[in-house]
Amino acid sequence: MKCTLWLAVGLLVAGPLAAEPFSEEDLAVARELREAALAGDGGYEIVADLTTRIGPRLAGSEADARAVEWAVQMFEGMGFDRVWTEPATFPTWHRGLERTEIVSPARHELVTLALGFSPATPKGGIEAEVAMFEDLAALQEADPAEVADRIVFIRNRMERTRTGAGYGRAVGARSVGSRVAAEKGALALVIRSIGTSNNRFAHTGMQRFDSDVRLLPAVAISNPDADLLERLMAGDEPVRIQVEVDAETVESYTSQNVFAEITGSGKPGEIVAIGAHLDSWDVGTGAIDDGAGVAIVTEAARLIGNLDRRPDRSIRVILFAAEEIGLWGGRAWVRAREAQMDKYQFVAESDFGAGRAYAISARVSDAAWPVIAAIQEELEPLGIELGERSASGGPDFSPALRYGVAAVDLEQDGTEYFDYHHTVNDTLDKIEPDALAQNAAAYAVLAWLGAQAPMGFGSGRTILEEESTD
Amino acid sequence: MKCTLWLAVGLLVAGPLAAEPFSEEDLAVARELREAALAGDGGYEIVADLTTRIGPRLAGSEADARAVEWAVQMFEGMGFDRVWTEPATFPTWHRGLERTEIVSPARHELVTLALGFSPATPKGGIEAEVAMFEDLAALQEADPAEVADRIVFIRNRMERTRTGAGYGRAVGARSVGSRVAAEKGALALVIRSIGTSNNRFAHTGMQRFDSDVRLLPAVAISNPDADLLERLMAGDEPVRIQVEVDAETVESYTSQNVFAEITGSGKPGEIVAIGAHLDSWDVGTGAIDDGAGVAIVTEAARLIGNLDRRPDRSIRVILFAAEEIGLWGGRAWVRAREAQMDKYQFVAESDFGAGRAYAISARVSDAAWPVIAAIQEELEPLGIELGERSASGGPDFSPALRYGVAAVDLEQDGTEYFDYHHTVNDTLDKIEPDALAQNAAAYAVLAWLGAQAPMGFGSGRTILEEESTD
Repeated sequence: MKCTLWLAVGLLVAGPLAAEPFSEEDLAVARELREAALAGDGGYEIVADLTTRIGPRLAGSEADARAVEWAVQMFEGMGFDRVWTEPATFPTWHRGLERTEIVSPARHELVTLALGFSPATPKGGIEAEVAMFEDLAALQEADPAEVADRIVFIRNRMERTRTGAGYGRAVGARSVGSRVAAEKGALALVIRSIGTSNNRFAHTGMQRFDSDVRLLPAVAISNPDADLLERLMAGDEPVRIQVEVDAETVESYTSQNVFAEITGSGKPGEIVAIGAHLDSWDVGTGAIDDGAGVAIVTEAARLIGNLDRRPDRSIRVILFAAEEIGLWGGRAWVRAREAQMDKYQFVAESDFGAGRAYAISARVSDAAWPVIAAIQEELEPLGIELGERSASGGPDFSPALRYGVAAVDLEQDGTEYFDYHHTVNDTLDKIEPDALAQNAAAYAVLAWLGAQAPMGFGSGRTILEEESTD
Repeated sequence: MKCTLWLAVGLLVAGPLAAEPFSEEDLAVARELREAALAGDGGYEIVADLTTRIGPRLAGSEADARAVEWAVQMFEGMGFDRVWTEPATFPTWHRGLERTEIVSPARHELVTLALGFSPATPKGGIEAEVAMFEDLAALQEADPAEVADRIVFIRNRMERTRTGAGYGRAVGARSVGSRVAAEKGALALVIRSIGTSNNRFAHTGMQRFDSDVRLLPAVAISNPDADLLERLMAGDEPVRIQVEVDAETVESYTSQNVFAEITGSGKPGEIVAIGAHLDSWDVGTGAIDDGAGVAIVTEAARLIGNLDRRPDRSIRVILFAAEEIGLWGGRAWVRAREAQMDKYQFVAESDFGAGRAYAISARVSDAAWPVIAAIQEELEPLGIELGERSASGGPDFSPALRYGVAAVDLEQDGTEYFDYHHTVNDTLDKIEPDALAQNAAAYAVLAWLGAQAPMGFGSGRTILEEESTD
């Protein structure tokens, strides 16, 4: 299918649709699903069970394997038409001891988490004077003489926003700070946590790495501890800290993506895919990240599966492996079906906690955009407005975008997400049951109407100029 | 002075005061102090310095000694007329490892703090089935057969209130839970934290004990962890947990109460005493408990000391030792001057964080109550209303009450106090500088006008029936 053709179709349907895209019967089912999701607590039960019976489930851990088993049993118990797993193989990492202590001019033990794939320090740790930088850019511009043989401290603060955009602006300190500091001869990296809370929790997360990059031992300290370190740095005396990390990288582990399908009655080979990731960081119980997403998409599909009517297209729930440590599940999913990407009606992952959804954005063909607008009309009672004509589909589905797969994002309010995400404080009580149910309602409406839509959502690739040569 | 006489005076002055108790000049100074405190950041600088340069300072620790030195240097630097210390001797306790793990039906490491003076477990810990109780009363009523050889879990939840009254209602589980469980043959005690936050921090604190009471190893778990334990207890399978504590009690340590005085120009032997406690728990940096109090009363006195005029009576700041682990500083202060208690115009301790003061309550003679009302008029612009005719003077001053010493409480808003108190999350950022300054302003007005008052605040004992035979 050529881009130009899709663009032409887009122009023809510009303005109000000539005919409503959905039958009254399909719309009635969408409304029934929406109300059932809002009235029920099925989603909350799912995330309560996952966080209580499994808890933290770092990719590659023993709990990861138990989580996969838990998901398979859950899906089978719900009566999906097909339940299966597909392997995803990745390097993994285990956290041991981690400790940051200000040694002088005043001793303070700081609340600390090692960053993902941090190498270990020698036993007893590394002690050195601190070199403080405003942000990653300041470190990148620094004279190596200011950095060599020091422990680098990057103090940038994440800004609180509804969209979570502050995370993207601040997270470079974590993702590449260690390699930049290493290139300039530093001994270790300490960062202010990439989170918005002033509670005394450190925020872990992934660092970008590959085999030719040297990482330093790297830790995040809680934001109150970063404040304290800054106060001492503002004094006249040099500040020395000690960082100790014990951690281990394991070269290869195979976990599973878990799939559940409601097979379509009309076009079973066309697939609406809704997903979440099953793994979590090893701190907290992975409630908002991403037990909430697991609950939202599973509950949405469960409600559709309970209908007397079958959807026209197939609806698949995909619970991805090893998202946190490098999107390994998402990448394995794409690699296994590169030639079949045109089977996907659209992809949509829930991986932004349990805050209320407030907009539907989509990366679909021009022709399909009015169908998205018609879906939004059924989301309007949930407080969900029409968003942007762009979407990523979520982290695990993002590797599919270069194959022109259509993507839909239900944008969630992330104002508080980064208060909890990647910390020991990511626990069930941080989920507001009504907001979780609102998300499940939105996904149920989206998946159902996406499966019933009169046209394919087509190649989103027409939207992205840089992919026009694909 | 007889009680009956005081009562008679009280009756005579009932209704509007015949004459204003304060001169226009004294009132002008009070207003000047109030505005200076509100405009300045001296209090915040004090608590920032204490939490940054000293940090946590458990009574009997090395940091306790450094805190005493810090306070003496601070007072000397401020030019008080007299600065001195007096010893307080007490048993102390050191925290080592502490760990609570749910072993079955699902493994979870819980966020844990040992309670003060918890004995150690054997190395490797104690593992047993959990016996859960609604609250202390339910444990007290339980058949020993339900408790013996179990680990007791008390799940009572502290209620959030402005006054902090929820703490008193819930804290029995912590203060006497261990001894009650021990009497019924339990192996260890686990309590839900006596705090109002759903952040994943455990809340430590003192247990009542004396030499003839046997305590069990006792820990608090964070509130989200208590929720999780309750969810597992609601299932069909027995729940087993493991508790490990390493801790050490030391029989005797001598710390110091630290005093600073502005000597009165007219009645130097009569004393207005404002205080706070210098020690803190060993977690957090002791910012709201009680660095805030140290800052509030010190700043109030510093501002008075900076005046050209001397107060009529002497004003003393007292920073008490070892409040957290049993009011040892307060008790030593009383013991050293039992015969001189009538020298105290009144006592008032700031030990409820940095929330805004909203009322002035006092335990004074009937005759002095109109003077309190006149002081309240100068506190009105701070949003402080006239409170109750009762007051404790704060924990460290409370041992003085049985000597009939008058006490004043500036009641603070404690809505959020128990979110942070006794946790690792008690750090400087939890203090709102403007609210701290409002408290310093209130203490400055109170101490100044208390020192200038036309009469002694007399024996509060007339108010307390049960003390009429003292």
